[in-house]
Amino acid sequence: MSNPAYTAMWEKLNLDIPAHDGLLEVLGKFYGDIYMSQQGRLQGMEYLDFVLSEVHGLRIQELQQAKEQGKKIIGTFCVFVPEEITLAAGAVHVGLCSGADAGTEEAEKLVPRNTCALIKSFIGFKLARLCPFTESCDLVVGETTCDGKKKAYEAFAEHVPMHVMEVPNTKSDAARDLFKTEVLRYMQALQQLTGTAITPQALASGIRAVNAKRRALQRLSALRSADPAPISGRDALLINQVSFYDDPERFTHSINALCDQMEERIARKEGIAPAGTPRLLLSGCPMAVPNWKLPYIMESSGAVIVGEESCIGTRNTRDLVDESQETLDGMIDALVDRYMKIDCACFTPNTERLHNVTAMAQELKADGIVHYALKFCQPYAHEAFKIEKAAREKDIPVLSVETDYSMEDAEQLKTRVEAFVEMVRG
Amino acid sequence: MSNPAYTAMWEKLNLDIPAHDGLLEVLGKFYGDIYMSQQGRLQGMEYLDFVLSEVHGLRIQELQQAKEQGKKIIGTFCVFVPEEITLAAGAVHVGLCSGADAGTEEAEKLVPRNTCALIKSFIGFKLARLCPFTESCDLVVGETTCDGKKKAYEAFAEHVPMHVMEVPNTKSDAARDLFKTEVLRYMQALQQLTGTAITPQALASGIRAVNAKRRALQRLSALRSADPAPISGRDALLINQVSFYDDPERFTHSINALCDQMEERIARKEGIAPAGTPRLLLSGCPMAVPNWKLPYIMESSGAVIVGEESCIGTRNTRDLVDESQETLDGMIDALVDRYMKIDCACFTPNTERLHNVTAMAQELKADGIVHYALKFCQPYAHEAFKIEKAAREKDIPVLSVETDYSMEDAEQLKTRVEAFVEMVRG
Repeated sequence: MSNPAYTAMWEKLNLDIPAHDGLLEVLGKFYGDIYMSQQGRLQGMEYLDFVLSEVHGLRIQELQQAKEQGKKIIGTFCVFVPEEITLAAGAVHVGLCSGADAGTEEAEKLVPRNTCALIKSFIGFKLARLCPFTESCDLVVGETTCDGKKKAYEAFAEHVPMHVMEVPNTKSDAARDLFKTEVLRYMQALQQLTGTAITPQALASGIRAVNAKRRALQRLSALRSADPAPISGRDALLINQVSFYDDPERFTHSINALCDQMEERIARKEGIAPAGTPRLLLSGCPMAVPNWKLPYIMESSGAVIVGEESCIGTRNTRDLVDESQETLDGMIDALVDRYMKIDCACFTPNTERLHNVTAMAQELKADGIVHYALKFCQPYAHEAFKIEKAAREKDIPVLSVETDYSMEDAEQLKTRVEAFVEMVRG
Repeated sequence: MSNPAYTAMWEKLNLDIPAHDGLLEVLGKFYGDIYMSQQGRLQGMEYLDFVLSEVHGLRIQELQQAKEQGKKIIGTFCVFVPEEITLAAGAVHVGLCSGADAGTEEAEKLVPRNTCALIKSFIGFKLARLCPFTESCDLVVGETTCDGKKKAYEAFAEHVPMHVMEVPNTKSDAARDLFKTEVLRYMQALQQLTGTAITPQALASGIRAVNAKRRALQRLSALRSADPAPISGRDALLINQVSFYDDPERFTHSINALCDQMEERIARKEGIAPAGTPRLLLSGCPMAVPNWKLPYIMESSGAVIVGEESCIGTRNTRDLVDESQETLDGMIDALVDRYMKIDCACFTPNTERLHNVTAMAQELKADGIVHYALKFCQPYAHEAFKIEKAAREKDIPVLSVETDYSMEDAEQLKTRVEAFVEMVRG
């Protein structure tokens, strides 16, 4: 993935060029092993391969071009930051690097060792100067969804321009009011940053663009109920990951084209794996690029993943914003209503997630659920107990996994996953 | 501390009698080693010795008598639950057992292993049937101050009657509105539970009672600026711990009497340790009974503790509620204003704590700060970095400690603390 044509751009972004070259090399090899080794992939995945191969290249070049045209780049780590508003302000909304161990030693000087890998990763990427997205940002927007991020953003703010949105702990009326205030405050911050007043037309257009993206991902998700499975879980995860990086319209168009191919394949009763392959639902914490360890282990243990119940998955795509509103305030309310439906483990209680997970497993005809919690992620680790219980009541087997980004536990995980796959095969 | 006279009461509360006898025996021995071994203690500490020796006996008997008179018992784990309102409803407000390893194995079936000792402890005490306070409760009131507690209360609610108050993540106007709604909701829940309408007179009286308790503890805290230190940190911590268990009026009276003795001792230039003994401020996570490990290690390493910057310490006593309000709404606002001043690490940002800690160290003439974070407590572990930095800027040395309730690291801690004491002795 390293490309001398981009080196000048990366130098301008003050990346650590030798370390970044090393990172791209490892990422390229990792991608080759995990992705390019797959047989019978859909042709439309070439778009994803291309996007990923150019994730630090062409896409960053596009961001620089946007900046030259006066556009602002907004970086985020969470599905609670409303992309609709970013687009309405004429800005670009991107997810930031957080899926690989990088600069861990430096990160541990700013945050405790017992912090989840995702948080250490985004701090490490910044301190080690390895993420061209972070370096392109005019504003990084955080949120208070967990103790780890909430407090880490305080340290991060000393290194990047930050705006933190408060996400409440419950879904009470007062909590919804608080979140609406925070959405308005984000809108105000963006208007100030971009010098653009957000009009009802612009917000309506932002809402339609993000809804269209979510609809394409919903379509993809629904097609995966077919047996044989038309697409691997790795590829579907990659699609969800890329949805946070790529241009929304290009992405939506490409995913709809891919879904057309999936429909044809399903009509031919073809799949990525033979009919009857054990089907697993992956549920839990977000998996940022290139955190493909567990999906790869699952799919190389004789199973196929049929859904991702995660922030980088259905948690981000399940709900749409009502498009019938015409006033700015009506749209903001519609937006707040949609975001307050997110079944994040940051809420107490979060019983709707239990329903959503089991319903999703049933709709996608999953034979079992692998629950994934990042080590030291307290909200999802707590909910693992509840998911196990809720699934048990519906006779759905659950394997609960806690891991991080290191490869040290790969063999041990593989042994556990293989045993689980054998068990659900029955 | 075991007493056959109370066995019938404990049986009625469904305690595990043999295990509870064992706990009291260990607690008694531990108390003897750590407390009764001290030389030159103030006479007024006999009250504390008595209260602690009867903490599962006489005090529980009082709670049972209150219940027989129709009073309700409210259990809490956090300084955000307003005792003023509990008292105004004619109910009894008590802290629940959470300071010792108990029922850990059972607790880990409900909450993740990577949960702090305090949370595992309160769940363990319940599951192992060892806490007569928990068993006496008509309602347990939790709060959303950290991910661990927020999610653990969901599991705990299956075992005790729970009410959870939302504490916001920031101190914005919208966050204050949310907390006010929660205070009103708590008031409503209590009125329903007790069948008592809270009058302005009752709330004013509750505010005065809790303010009086806080004033006594403020007086005690201020007297500790004297050198030689008039009281040990262990004893002062015990006083703060007992403030969560004992009858408020009796407590306030006893502590003021103790402060009279402290003043006499200070006038005589006498202390618990010689003048010039290295003085340390203890800062960080709450220490519930019998979590005396670190204070004991500090004071048996040649230092004296002169303050506890903690929820069981000045975080709970620094601010008073304005007593000049006459309407119920005015009082509620005064209450909310006071509680929103708490410098808990749950808030982002929480810069006032940095000021408070360094100011406190200077006022109490501390030679250094020992920052204490419970293992897996993310909010305080994050703030440890900030406290170190803020103190360094004022030339105050900091030792940052992360530990739990086990004794396994006692030797290692002692080595680190001794080296720190030698260093600050200069």
